[in-house]
Amino acid sequence: MLIVMESGATDGQIRAVMERIQTLGLRPHVIPGAERTAIGITGNHGPLDPAEFEILPGVQEAIRVTKPYKLVSREVKAADSVIQVGGRPIGGRRLAIIAGPCAVETETQTLEIARAVAAAGADLFRGGAFKPRTSPYSFQGLGLEGLRILARAREETGLPIVTEAVDEESLGMVEDYADAVQIGARNMQNFSLLKRAGKSRLPIFLKRGMSATLEEFLMAAEYIVSEGNYQVFLCERGVRTFADHTRNTLDLAIVPAVKHLSHLPILVDPSHGTGRRDKVVPLARAAVAVGADGVMVEVHHDPSRALSDGPQSILPSQFGDLVRDIRALAGLVGRSHD
Amino acid sequence: MLIVMESGATDGQIRAVMERIQTLGLRPHVIPGAERTAIGITGNHGPLDPAEFEILPGVQEAIRVTKPYKLVSREVKAADSVIQVGGRPIGGRRLAIIAGPCAVETETQTLEIARAVAAAGADLFRGGAFKPRTSPYSFQGLGLEGLRILARAREETGLPIVTEAVDEESLGMVEDYADAVQIGARNMQNFSLLKRAGKSRLPIFLKRGMSATLEEFLMAAEYIVSEGNYQVFLCERGVRTFADHTRNTLDLAIVPAVKHLSHLPILVDPSHGTGRRDKVVPLARAAVAVGADGVMVEVHHDPSRALSDGPQSILPSQFGDLVRDIRALAGLVGRSHD
Amino acid sequence: MLIVMESGATDGQIRAVMERIQTLGLRPHVIPGAERTAIGITGNHGPLDPAEFEILPGVQEAIRVTKPYKLVSREVKAADSVIQVGGRPIGGRRLAIIAGPCAVETETQTLEIARAVAAAGADLFRGGAFKPRTSPYSFQGLGLEGLRILARAREETGLPIVTEAVDEESLGMVEDYADAVQIGARNMQNFSLLKRAGKSRLPIFLKRGMSATLEEFLMAAEYIVSEGNYQVFLCERGVRTFADHTRNTLDLAIVPAVKHLSHLPILVDPSHGTGRRDKVVPLARAAVAVGADGVMVEVHHDPSRALSDGPQSILPSQFGDLVRDIRALAGLVGRSHD
Amino acid sequence: MLIVMESGATDGQIRAVMERIQTLGLRPHVIPGAERTAIGITGNHGPLDPAEFEILPGVQEAIRVTKPYKLVSREVKAADSVIQVGGRPIGGRRLAIIAGPCAVETETQTLEIARAVAAAGADLFRGGAFKPRTSPYSFQGLGLEGLRILARAREETGLPIVTEAVDEESLGMVEDYADAVQIGARNMQNFSLLKRAGKSRLPIFLKRGMSATLEEFLMAAEYIVSEGNYQVFLCERGVRTFADHTRNTLDLAIVPAVKHLSHLPILVDPSHGTGRRDKVVPLARAAVAVGADGVMVEVHHDPSRALSDGPQSILPSQFGDLVRDIRALAGLVGRSHD
Repeated sequence: MLIVMESGATDGQIRAVMERIQTLGLRPHVIPGAERTAIGITGNHGPLDPAEFEILPGVQEAIRVTKPYKLVSREVKAADSVIQVGGRPIGGRRLAIIAGPCAVETETQTLEIARAVAAAGADLFRGGAFKPRTSPYSFQGLGLEGLRILARAREETGLPIVTEAVDEESLGMVEDYADAVQIGARNMQNFSLLKRAGKSRLPIFLKRGMSATLEEFLMAAEYIVSEGNYQVFLCERGVRTFADHTRNTLDLAIVPAVKHLSHLPILVDPSHGTGRRDKVVPLARAAVAVGADGVMVEVHHDPSRALSDGPQSILPSQFGDLVRDIRALAGLVGRSHD
Repeated sequence: MLIVMESGATDGQIRAVMERIQTLGLRPHVIPGAERTAIGITGNHGPLDPAEFEILPGVQEAIRVTKPYKLVSREVKAADSVIQVGGRPIGGRRLAIIAGPCAVETETQTLEIARAVAAAGADLFRGGAFKPRTSPYSFQGLGLEGLRILARAREETGLPIVTEAVDEESLGMVEDYADAVQIGARNMQNFSLLKRAGKSRLPIFLKRGMSATLEEFLMAAEYIVSEGNYQVFLCERGVRTFADHTRNTLDLAIVPAVKHLSHLPILVDPSHGTGRRDKVVPLARAAVAVGADGVMVEVHHDPSRALSDGPQSILPSQFGDLVRDIRALAGLVGRSHD
Repeated sequence: MLIVMESGATDGQIRAVMERIQTLGLRPHVIPGAERTAIGITGNHGPLDPAEFEILPGVQEAIRVTKPYKLVSREVKAADSVIQVGGRPIGGRRLAIIAGPCAVETETQTLEIARAVAAAGADLFRGGAFKPRTSPYSFQGLGLEGLRILARAREETGLPIVTEAVDEESLGMVEDYADAVQIGARNMQNFSLLKRAGKSRLPIFLKRGMSATLEEFLMAAEYIVSEGNYQVFLCERGVRTFADHTRNTLDLAIVPAVKHLSHLPILVDPSHGTGRRDKVVPLARAAVAVGADGVMVEVHHDPSRALSDGPQSILPSQFGDLVRDIRALAGLVGRSHD
Repeated sequence: MLIVMESGATDGQIRAVMERIQTLGLRPHVIPGAERTAIGITGNHGPLDPAEFEILPGVQEAIRVTKPYKLVSREVKAADSVIQVGGRPIGGRRLAIIAGPCAVETETQTLEIARAVAAAGADLFRGGAFKPRTSPYSFQGLGLEGLRILARAREETGLPIVTEAVDEESLGMVEDYADAVQIGARNMQNFSLLKRAGKSRLPIFLKRGMSATLEEFLMAAEYIVSEGNYQVFLCERGVRTFADHTRNTLDLAIVPAVKHLSHLPILVDPSHGTGRRDKVVPLARAAVAVGADGVMVEVHHDPSRALSDGPQSILPSQFGDLVRDIRALAGLVGRSHD
């Protein structure tokens, strides 16, 4: 259930509604809005009676939420959410471009790529310090040292940092160094990690699981938001199918599907979504055309020597062309990037 | 194997090479080019010796084709093919927009939609007279009467007609009335029908099967071309996956993948690809952005009463907006539509 | 709708009901039963009124059929169907074992395998004379000559023959030589071929399409039955998924699912279902344990030289072991094979 | 690389080989065998030279391991592993039957079901105290109180307990109360949790991820074993496909595929694998027939009131019948359960 307060409701009235909700053994979630405040209720096992809340002072109406996801749904918040990452907006009119290497390998490599993508127009810098790898014998990331290198890249370029956390311990470290925390596809249903992310002060960048349905994807976001962290932005990165011409099958139709049901921003990762360098640019363009709030692409100055995902990394020069393409496309879909 | 003739090779030299190929029990396929003629060879069970052909007069070189598909591959023909359908080009710089109802229902309905899409800027008109339906008890199309209605729509609007054939008998009828023959997803591996299509004088519009790999898709086209009909254009229409937010999962990455391997044009059908009206326009835009040679969309003036696929048909007014979007996008990807 | 006649209903009463149905522009399908006759009605676009038929003499009740498939559903016929193929029952208590090479290659090869599988206990002999192949340049089968060889194999071994038809022309030829007609996975939704099969006097062995849902599978069978051919038996042969350790993913759960909804027999093909020789025997055992009415396995005396599907063919000696396994298992699941 | 010691190699020789491996910056893994000891080496980035080790005293040979998974592969250990869980063997000749409710709900419910499955012949008792749920608002398990109830069930029935851990914290608690730790499908690639499980003194029951390939599944097991815990047994529980007649598609062919490549035991969970009560028993039978080392089934005395997964839970009486079926089948596949 969602309680919509009158536009002139006082703090005292909002507090009173929250107390009433808690008295009933339920949990209130304040959702501030430009014009009015709303309060989501979770924790009920059956339907609640709207009359119970509509009699309270300052309440405009109480609305039943019909979806299994509540706080991330458009029913609860009609306007698009805009998430601030290190001062850069994700969502809203401006497109966001996240770029960087798959993994932080060395300071030299990281700074070289960071400078290149900053110069080309990236908004955020990415790079993995903790790498979830299929094999226990593959390079697992530099860990804390990787985070320190990322922080130096931010110092030098001014680009905020988004980097993956793979467990509670690494999430704590990422919070100390980065501007947003990525939860990867393999952890989309690692519910303990999602709950921990819900208690973070940083925005969470949640990637779709390899075989996650739309509902499961939004429910994973709901796990984070239900713990109190409303700063969540999503990422489509391809799903697993029989098709063998790409590493995954990029499901661009989920972008308008998410936007229809949820107020959260959604980006597209054509690097993991295709796994092939020559497909990254066309699919990034398609992502903007379909209405995504931005793209995340892997860039490496020397892909053949990359410690992971070399075959899907584009060169800095290709990234520059891509930024130009995106800027040209942006206006056609009512967006901007300048 | 592919025999590339010298640019000044005479007709007699070309004939001599073909006779040599036939003498060896193999089949020659002449592929005329702007500068030089090539001759594909099929029918060999093992590798052929290039020297066998390079000694013949007028032969520049003999190249082994490494892919299982031969005549549709870029190895055999590097330049993009442009297919003429009733005087309209498919492939090349100009984007092609095919539009019309899922099924021809009545003359009134068909003409009304045809006039609307012609006015909005469609290049070809589509409409099913023979409908492959999951249930034997569903509307199966008007058959011959449907073809006559389509011909009247062409008379009135000047738009060439593309319509589906579901077996050899209907293919013969479609040849009498239409400008291009569609082979649907369910028949992509109906090899008898493909061979029959390979003997048609009309261009063939081949849709990808619901679970076809890229190689199977190109091999299906090869069936048609190997029978002598080089006028083939392809269509991605979504594949079957676990995802349930759309009817199929539109696999846009197959567009650059096809273009890398084959010279055939490829269009995208976002109507079947998503099955949801509100997803058609965003995915059509994405199709152009990814590099498709055009789109096919289902348009109906009264979708709630359509006899098939109403939920995925867009209104004529939405189609008008889509054409405008496509024209704006075209320039950004080196294409045009005017 | 299904009209259930009283157990003592006369031929005249049955005829009168059928005439009434035809008068309404609908189509009656007589379904004879051990105790009473039922009459299925198809062709209606909306629900029919039971009272319309229940007032006719000899009618016990008129039942609305709730599934999209009618004549193949258990609602219309509760008892398991048993199909006779050349005097051998498919369905019912006795398990059916179909065996033979993927393709008929030569008379020597075919007779050698036929003798071996007959000696080991096969019930029917299989072998393709018309082969649907992904590549137009692969061996496409011996055609009519292959059918003649199959007929000679029947003469010598007494085993009835089941072989695939790929189009209307080959179906006509198969009818002249074989005891049952196979419709392959790629043609499961070749509706023209299904309708033609519905007019055959032979039983039809319908394989599930590579990405067919349960409902689509039963609807394909309904196409055949709705044309008047009630002799249909089904085959699960694996579906296409991301899994790469087998050629297809054998979906054994469809066996109890089909049996719950339909009276038609269903067999399992572990050869195509796995594509790997060492998986055929374990999965054949599992098929019997899950409740299938039999199995179809590919057997070849010299798999390394087979013209198609060698890697999934088992040796005659392995087939002998499999028959022994199946006989042992049969009793445990209330079946027999002796 | 795998170092195979001579059958009479001394402890000192084994220690010397291990020290040599560590000197090279690599990691030795001692694999004791009935006749001889082997030592796996991990941590190398390129191939090692066998001669380097074959010159050491007591070494019989050094073998290159060709698979990406090393310690779980048959190359490294040819004989089937048998894992002891609370004194009950998993793997080997005897089939293992694990049964119990999806979730521990109350002490009464748990004890009632535990008594029933013990009486019917179960080997291990299962029940979730920590439940990974798609929705944050669904019942998440009783946690520590659930573990205490499970311990009481063991006291009363003598059945060892296997229960799921969802993060490092719950794994620590499970270690205090249970006999084996389950890692669920959603956590199959939660590599931090796998590494933690690799340091547990308890056996680990690892379920296949919803879209995991065979290689990814074995690599997940390798993560556990590479940390030193060799007591791992696997579980197939269905994969995600387009098929909608079951909740997941049970991929029984992975059983012989795992057995071909790995020495680890593998069980099958037909409850999650089908999601439908009436499919559990047939698929459990099929699992035994295909060669699985056992089954895990969900049993509930009042499924309609179960807090999770009611529709896939069978009744205690059905479980009794299933145990009888399995015992009858066991002998036919060279196994036993008595």
